Amino acid sequence: MQAQEPESRQLVGLQFLYGSGEAAAVSLGTYRSLETHALAMAADRPEFSVIVTPEATLDAPSYVPCGDKPLAVVFDVDETVTLNTGLGYNQFTGGNSSLAAEHPVRAAPGAVEAIRRLEQAGITAIYNTNRTVDMAELVAGFLVSIGLDRPVMGENYFLNGMDELGGNKDGRRWTIAEDWCVVAMAGDQLGDFAQILNTVEPVPARRAAAMTGPYAGNWGNGWFLLPNTAYGRALEGDVGDIFPEMVEAAN
Amino acid sequence: MQAQEPESRQLVGLQFLYGSGEAAAVSLGTYRSLETHALAMAADRPEFSVIVTPEATLDAPSYVPCGDKPLAVVFDVDETVTLNTGLGYNQFTGGNSSLAAEHPVRAAPGAVEAIRRLEQAGITAIYNTNRTVDMAELVAGFLVSIGLDRPVMGENYFLNGMDELGGNKDGRRWTIAEDWCVVAMAGDQLGDFAQILNTVEPVPARRAAAMTGPYAGNWGNGWFLLPNTAYGRALEGDVGDIFPEMVEAAN
Repeated sequence: MQAQEPESRQLVGLQFLYGSGEAAAVSLGTYRSLETHALAMAADRPEFSVIVTPEATLDAPSYVPCGDKPLAVVFDVDETVTLNTGLGYNQFTGGNSSLAAEHPVRAAPGAVEAIRRLEQAGITAIYNTNRTVDMAELVAGFLVSIGLDRPVMGENYFLNGMDELGGNKDGRRWTIAEDWCVVAMAGDQLGDFAQILNTVEPVPARRAAAMTGPYAGNWGNGWFLLPNTAYGRALEGDVGDIFPEMVEAAN
Repeated sequence: MQAQEPESRQLVGLQFLYGSGEAAAVSLGTYRSLETHALAMAADRPEFSVIVTPEATLDAPSYVPCGDKPLAVVFDVDETVTLNTGLGYNQFTGGNSSLAAEHPVRAAPGAVEAIRRLEQAGITAIYNTNRTVDMAELVAGFLVSIGLDRPVMGENYFLNGMDELGGNKDGRRWTIAEDWCVVAMAGDQLGDFAQILNTVEPVPARRAAAMTGPYAGNWGNGWFLLPNTAYGRALEGDVGDIFPEMVEAAN
């Protein structure tokens, strides 16, 4: 097969995420830190899950109480536990780029080993993906293909369409937090943690909400975000969004 | 000033690193994890620095002994402690893109706060940059501009040109490790940690050396890498480098 040029706009993101030792190092480091944090929480049970309540606002966070619920960590799937190398490769070659298609995936570096060690410590891995329910078997197969157990829908496996909120993962998080004390979450988008951060507009305000607001202390402290440079909301904005202080100074 | 279109190849990387809440979350989380790790090491002194010896090979790591040396953390500067937003912005606007020029920088999210807390715990921050010695005052000024103390060359500040190894940071790391027990390092390139990883070719072998070799356990465990999607060696490779297993399967 003759390799073609991908859209040049995407090349840097694919090089970084799927090709570089640096991205592998970030993934391994993030999973190591997540595991360390979750095991420390398991040794000294926290009062609250790392899941925000329906009442939480940007200015006033609140979190679901843990009670005596069993311990869990909630993982997004795509570009968090799995890397969609098949889809990325198809951007070069014109292969099947449907999300609903079978294609090779890799394990995100460190993901499988961390999940195995969490499970050995009695902490359940729960998957909360924005793939739609019609792809449940497909995505479960991806997880099995990288060496994880097949998840069970409604028990430790939640997809877009299982409630009325669509791609807003909050509802599924609230369902999970009713039954579990969630000591950590991993994802690649702000929406994998709290929808109130994900919906802030425009781009600089969204960065500020994640970076300087009362949720900023969660990063590395229960919330673990892996860089996705291939697609998603982190790849938005024009010069005024990316460098607002520079544009302001120039005007 | 009229904003121009940057080279489209670079846009995704600039959006992610300088514009997104997700990149801010990664930076905050990485600094939080670094601080947690360094404070734990300070409480229970390690036998070895996280700096590899001149004798270390890809297959056989070895690390400089700590003895009773004082504790330190070694930081790269650009895209680790500072974000070169001035340079990035100039890619859009045609402004001065010389590295040797004064331009605005931002603090990497979490960097200043983590360094302050390390110093309060008696852990010295040491900067090891590949900026050349003629830029020592300029880069020290960048650090001061984000709220850090002015570093002192040869004490806690090391630049390219202070030994015979040029951009290979190993020699400066060995100089530092003679006087300090280094409990953590932060950087954005493999060369900020160990040159033996940085010099592996081609791209997939370099990723494998960082990801699966005997150094993989250092990530998040003394070595903390921040994603740089604006420039650097993580943005290399063609389709065969990024997805080697897919190209092999297709042939």
